Amino acid sequence: MSDQNIKAIVFDVYGTLFDVHSVIKECERQFPERGQKISEIWRKKQLEYSFLRGLMGNYRPFWEITKDALTYACMVEDVELTETKEEKLLDAYLKLEPYKEVEGILSQLEGYQLAVFSNGSEEMLHPLIEHHHFQGYFNQLISVNGIKQFKPHPSSYLHALEQLGVEREEVLFLSSNTWDIAGAKTFGFQVAWVNRSGGIMDELGVTPDHVVSDLTELFD
Amino acid sequence: MSDQNIKAIVFDVYGTLFDVHSVIKECERQFPERGQKISEIWRKKQLEYSFLRGLMGNYRPFWEITKDALTYACMVEDVELTETKEEKLLDAYLKLEPYKEVEGILSQLEGYQLAVFSNGSEEMLHPLIEHHHFQGYFNQLISVNGIKQFKPHPSSYLHALEQLGVEREEVLFLSSNTWDIAGAKTFGFQVAWVNRSGGIMDELGVTPDHVVSDLTELFD
Repeated sequence: MSDQNIKAIVFDVYGTLFDVHSVIKECERQFPERGQKISEIWRKKQLEYSFLRGLMGNYRPFWEITKDALTYACMVEDVELTETKEEKLLDAYLKLEPYKEVEGILSQLEGYQLAVFSNGSEEMLHPLIEHHHFQGYFNQLISVNGIKQFKPHPSSYLHALEQLGVEREEVLFLSSNTWDIAGAKTFGFQVAWVNRSGGIMDELGVTPDHVVSDLTELFD
Repeated sequence: MSDQNIKAIVFDVYGTLFDVHSVIKECERQFPERGQKISEIWRKKQLEYSFLRGLMGNYRPFWEITKDALTYACMVEDVELTETKEEKLLDAYLKLEPYKEVEGILSQLEGYQLAVFSNGSEEMLHPLIEHHHFQGYFNQLISVNGIKQFKPHPSSYLHALEQLGVEREEVLFLSSNTWDIAGAKTFGFQVAWVNRSGGIMDELGVTPDHVVSDLTELFD
């Protein structure tokens, strides 16, 4: 990564800096032998509900959607989500584990404006970043909740751009989520797809500027 | 179903009148032992791409999206999609099997304006309906392609309503797809969820007016 035009480096959060499936442990504790399945449905529905509410024009903060998706996952798996269990699982979402290279990379990115830009609403985003003492690395923590339109809608990326105060081609945006890469590139950011799971780019008519397996590969 | 106010009965197509997974046979023929998996990914990505393109404001007709989704499914499953194989698989999509009760029900719904309303573009919708000689049952075949915005965006349902020429509360809309039920109900149609697979309604803040396991249950 040696593009002289980049002024701001912007990171997606869920799946990119933090492993959403680190909740499996707590899922497994609450629902033995169902942890992985519940975690998978939880994430799948969390994304799907954000896309559908975005399309329907029926916004609800991502933290509420995260609860709705957990409720659905437990109904499908036919397990009882008591208040105590819900509290423990949601709490685990506020303490997701960062990928192992993240802090080392963040600490060496001097000279750039650094930000996160997430579908996550403030009440879930801020505790997560603060739990890991990452707030010092970022100039901005940007949530789509400020515009009430989820990624990958263009207005969400416009909201981020306005918060950053740079030109759109001066932004390097990193995400592990192919739909987020498609949205950001379509909007006009430079994009790096952090392909952590060795996946295949979705057929959305977009080619990422960079494809890396983790953050180290991009910045070393 | 005895609501005196209903003037138009409108059916979703894919998954509601026709079984999208009836392509498994052709998938299996082209890719032995991978048929079911490919069919599942194909449908999953077809829906996902329509939602994402809807959100990104990057419309492409559903027939093209159906091809893109098949391309992705074959890449993920690491099988070669030759031109011949693609042609055979897409042709199977134009001849999907209707659910067994569909024709019997359509033939007895006299006195109502009947229509289909689908994300499918005309070049896939018309051949499918005509292949089964169903065109005589419907007053209208409505595609979102007329407005270039996929369900569940409200403008797509508005487009259908304008084609129907009735009031929105005079429409009974039937779909097997929970996201379609959520979109149609949010827009203001009366809705019946055809829960063919014994699933659970998604947590999208919407309760269907009717829930039935097939069309017979609603109209008998």
